[in-house]
Amino acid sequence: MSIIAAARRSPALRVLVARAKSVRPSSSIATPNFPCVDAHAARESRLIASFTAPTITTTSQDSSDTGPEPPYARPNPTSYHTYHHPHPLPLTYHPTPLPSFDIAYETWGSLSPKKDNVILIHTGLSASSHAASSPVNPAPGWWENFIGPGKAIDTNRFFVICTNVIGGCYGSTGPSSIEQATGKPWATRFPIISVFDMVNAQFSLLDHLGINKLYASVGSSMGAMQSLAAGYLHPQRVGKIVSISGTARSSPSAVAMRFAQRSVLMADPNWNNGFYYDRLPPHTGMKLARQIATITYRSGPEWDLRFGRQLRATSGTTPAKIPGPERTPALCPDFLIESYLDHQGESFCLKYDANSLIYISKAMDLFDMTLPALEALNLTIDDAEVPPTSSTSATQPHKTSHSKSHPPPTNPPPHLPELAAGMKRLSHIPTLVLGVQSDVLFTVEQQREVVDALRMAGNEHVSYYELGGVWGHDTFLIDVLNVGGAIRGFLS
Amino acid sequence: MSIIAAARRSPALRVLVARAKSVRPSSSIATPNFPCVDAHAARESRLIASFTAPTITTTSQDSSDTGPEPPYARPNPTSYHTYHHPHPLPLTYHPTPLPSFDIAYETWGSLSPKKDNVILIHTGLSASSHAASSPVNPAPGWWENFIGPGKAIDTNRFFVICTNVIGGCYGSTGPSSIEQATGKPWATRFPIISVFDMVNAQFSLLDHLGINKLYASVGSSMGAMQSLAAGYLHPQRVGKIVSISGTARSSPSAVAMRFAQRSVLMADPNWNNGFYYDRLPPHTGMKLARQIATITYRSGPEWDLRFGRQLRATSGTTPAKIPGPERTPALCPDFLIESYLDHQGESFCLKYDANSLIYISKAMDLFDMTLPALEALNLTIDDAEVPPTSSTSATQPHKTSHSKSHPPPTNPPPHLPELAAGMKRLSHIPTLVLGVQSDVLFTVEQQREVVDALRMAGNEHVSYYELGGVWGHDTFLIDVLNVGGAIRGFLS
Repeated sequence: MSIIAAARRSPALRVLVARAKSVRPSSSIATPNFPCVDAHAARESRLIASFTAPTITTTSQDSSDTGPEPPYARPNPTSYHTYHHPHPLPLTYHPTPLPSFDIAYETWGSLSPKKDNVILIHTGLSASSHAASSPVNPAPGWWENFIGPGKAIDTNRFFVICTNVIGGCYGSTGPSSIEQATGKPWATRFPIISVFDMVNAQFSLLDHLGINKLYASVGSSMGAMQSLAAGYLHPQRVGKIVSISGTARSSPSAVAMRFAQRSVLMADPNWNNGFYYDRLPPHTGMKLARQIATITYRSGPEWDLRFGRQLRATSGTTPAKIPGPERTPALCPDFLIESYLDHQGESFCLKYDANSLIYISKAMDLFDMTLPALEALNLTIDDAEVPPTSSTSATQPHKTSHSKSHPPPTNPPPHLPELAAGMKRLSHIPTLVLGVQSDVLFTVEQQREVVDALRMAGNEHVSYYELGGVWGHDTFLIDVLNVGGAIRGFLS
Repeated sequence: MSIIAAARRSPALRVLVARAKSVRPSSSIATPNFPCVDAHAARESRLIASFTAPTITTTSQDSSDTGPEPPYARPNPTSYHTYHHPHPLPLTYHPTPLPSFDIAYETWGSLSPKKDNVILIHTGLSASSHAASSPVNPAPGWWENFIGPGKAIDTNRFFVICTNVIGGCYGSTGPSSIEQATGKPWATRFPIISVFDMVNAQFSLLDHLGINKLYASVGSSMGAMQSLAAGYLHPQRVGKIVSISGTARSSPSAVAMRFAQRSVLMADPNWNNGFYYDRLPPHTGMKLARQIATITYRSGPEWDLRFGRQLRATSGTTPAKIPGPERTPALCPDFLIESYLDHQGESFCLKYDANSLIYISKAMDLFDMTLPALEALNLTIDDAEVPPTSSTSATQPHKTSHSKSHPPPTNPPPHLPELAAGMKRLSHIPTLVLGVQSDVLFTVEQQREVVDALRMAGNEHVSYYELGGVWGHDTFLIDVLNVGGAIRGFLS
C-alpha cells in the first residue's frame, strides 16, 4: 500500500503530514557545539597556563554547592605532623617492603597521663588527616561535626588521632611520593598495598607516640575496614571498634563500581600508565571517575527529593522549567542531577592524586576477612595477642547459634562461617556496627554480615544500628544526630 | 620517643622490622605494564588495519560468555524490511521535522484477514528489529525465547512486528544515516528525538501496512516507555499495553547512570563531537560506557552468586584462588567480576553506534508522562481518540482512591497526581505492568508508580506482578517462566 493510500485512511498521519509541511526545512540545523566536552579542553588549557609544579593543587570549595556536601579537607603541610618511619614496612601482597615511609597525622584533645584515652579515626578513600578544624588549620575537617569538645567524639575526654593513609597523597607515602632509590615519584612502580598495610603503618605511629592501646578504633567506609583490620592485627591493643557503613569482605558489586572508576581513569591518555607527575594529570579521567563515584555515594530517593526532574539553570530570560520546544534539550546536561554530578566531578578532579585513587580503591577491593583469604596473606600477627577466651572456642569456627538474644540469621551468605572464623580474633572486642538502608555501595546486607560473623565468632558485645534516611553511603558524613548519637553512646 | 625505643616496647614492631630486613631491597620493583590499558591501543591498531568502511561492524558473540547473557542481534540488511517514509516526521523537541525517514522492521506469524492480531514489540536502548529468529535470519533474536509458535507471544496466533527505533543504527534513520541535504552522515547534527517520536514513526509504518489497531503494544525497558507512549498518542489504536521494567517518568537516578555513560563516551577524543563516521569510532568510550551500563543491568546478589570473589583465570600453572603473595594483585582486573565487565564492554564497543547510544539514552531521560511535561511538548494528539468514559472524569485528575480492591498507596510520590492526569488517556486500556525487585535502573518503586497512576486515572484493568530473583533489569531477557508466563496470561 502506498503512503498516499495510508494517509487517506489515517487521520493521525494526515495531521502529521500537514504539520510537517508548515515548518522550516531541515537544512538550517546548526552545527552542534558541546560545552560539556569543551570543558575538558578548557581545563587542560588552564592547567597548562598555570603549570608551575607537578603537584596536586587544592582548589577551594566551590560556593555553588547546593546541598549538604561535606567540605573537602584542604591539607596544608604546616597544619599536620609527619612521622617518618625510617625502617621498612612489610607489605601484604609484595615480597619487597616499602623501604621507609611517612605518615601524616593530626590530633585533637589531650593525651591522658596513662595514655588510655586514644581514639584512632580511620578515613575513607580520599580523605586527609584533617578530620576536624584546629588552631593550626581552622578549615572545617571532613568529620567536623562529629569531633570536638562536647561532640560525639568528645575531645574534652579523648585524644583523637587521624592519619592520611599509606597510599594517599595528603602527606603520607603514596604513589606521588619520591622513591629514594630513583629520586623520582614512585608512580605505578609503587607496590600494591592493603588495608592491613595501612593499619600497620598507623600502629608504627602509635608505637612512636608511645601509645600501647587504643580506647577505640573508629572508621567509616574504608575506615571501617581499617577499624576491623586493627582489631584483627592487634586484638589486645584495640579497646573498642566502630565500623560504620563498611564491610569485612568487599562484595563483587562494590568491586564493579570501583573497577568502573579505575577503568575510566586509566583510559585517560594523560594517565600515561601512572607516570604523569612531570606533566598534566589525568584530569578528565578523574572527573569522570568522580561522577561515577558520586552516584554510588548517594541514593535515588535523595535525588528524587532534592532534584526531581528540575532542569539546570541557564543564562537568559526566565527559561521553561520543563523540556519542550521552549527549552530544547541538548546532549550535554539538561537536568539538575546532571549538572550536580558534573560539578562534583569538576571540583574533585584536581584535588586528589589519580594514582592514589587507583591504589586505595584496589586495596578496598582486596579486603576480605574470611579465614582462607586472611591465611593467604603475608601478614605478621602475634598469636600471643589472641585472647585466651577466644582461643578456647577456636575449634568451633562453624558455630551457627549466636546467643539467646540474637538468633542466627535466617538466610546467611555461604561465606558467613569462613568470615566468622576470620573474625575470631575480634571476638572479645566490643564493636559498634552501623549501616544505612539507602547505601548502595556498602549495603545493609553487608552490615548484617559483619554483625552475624562477629556474633557467630562468639562476640557478645556487638551493637548494631540500621539507619533510614536518603543520604546513602554519605550518611556517615551528614547525619550527626543518628550516627553521632550511636557513636557517643557506644564510646561512653 | 625514638623508633628504637618504640621498637623495644612493641613486639609487633620488632617482628615487622625483623621481617623487613630479611626481604629484598626495593630497587628491584619492575616497571609496570597495564594490559587492560594497552587493550585500547591494540583495538585501535586492529581497527586501523581493518579499516575498510566507516560503518558499524557486527562482531560475532564471543563464545567465552559464562552466563545467561542474551545474544546480541546481528542485523543483516537482507534480513529485515525497510519502510521508507517519504514525508517529514514532526519532532517533539525540534521545530524542524526529519525530512523523511526509514524504519527497519521484521515480522513473525501471519496477519489475520481483519488485521486484528497485531502485536507491536518495542525494543530497549540498543536492540535491533531482530527480536526472534526467522527463515531469512536464523540467528537467535534478542527475545528469542519469548516469541514463536507456542511461546508467550505465540506466532501461531499473533502477527508480531518489531522495529529498530528512530535514532538507532540497525536500519532505521539515526545519527549514522545520510542527511539528504548534505550527502553526509547526520552525526550530531541529528535532532534530539523523543520516545514519542519513535512511536510516531512506528505508527507511520502501521499506516503503511494498513494496520489500524494493535492487539497489544508490548515493551520492556525503553520499550515499556514506548508501549505507554503508544497508548497516549493513539488510545483508540492500542488494545492492550504491556510495560515491563519501564517507567512513565524517568527518575533522576536513572538519568544519573545514563549521564555517566554519555560523559565517558563523549570524552573519548575519537568521539570528535560526533563526527567520526569517516574515521575511527570512539571504541574506548563505548567500552567504558558499556561497563557502566552492565553494572546497572544486573544486580549485586546475582554477582555474589555467580562470581563471588573468584579471581579471573590466568595463564600459567594452577594459580592461587585467593589474592596473596602467590597471586600478586594488579591494578588491572584481578576478580572475575572485573573481567566480566571488561568482556561485556569489549564485545559491545564496536557493535553499536556511539551517537545512537547518546541520542536514545537522552530520549529515555526526557521521558515524562506527567501532565505538565506532556503539555510542554510539541505533540500532535487527536482529541477525538480520547474515549468518552475517560473524558467524563477528566475533571478529577487528583482523585486519590483507586478502587475497592486496590486502595491508594500509603506513601505516594508527590508527582503521582500529575502522572495520573497525564495517563488519563490510557485509562480504558488494559495494561500489564511487571517489575523486578532487584532492578536498580527501573526500580520497583517506579513500577508501582505506573500502576498507581493508571489506577488513580481510573484504569480498572491494570495487572501488576513484582518478580523476585537476582537478574535485575535484565530479567526481562532471561526469565521466560515468570515474565513469559505473565505476558501469555495477559494476552490470552
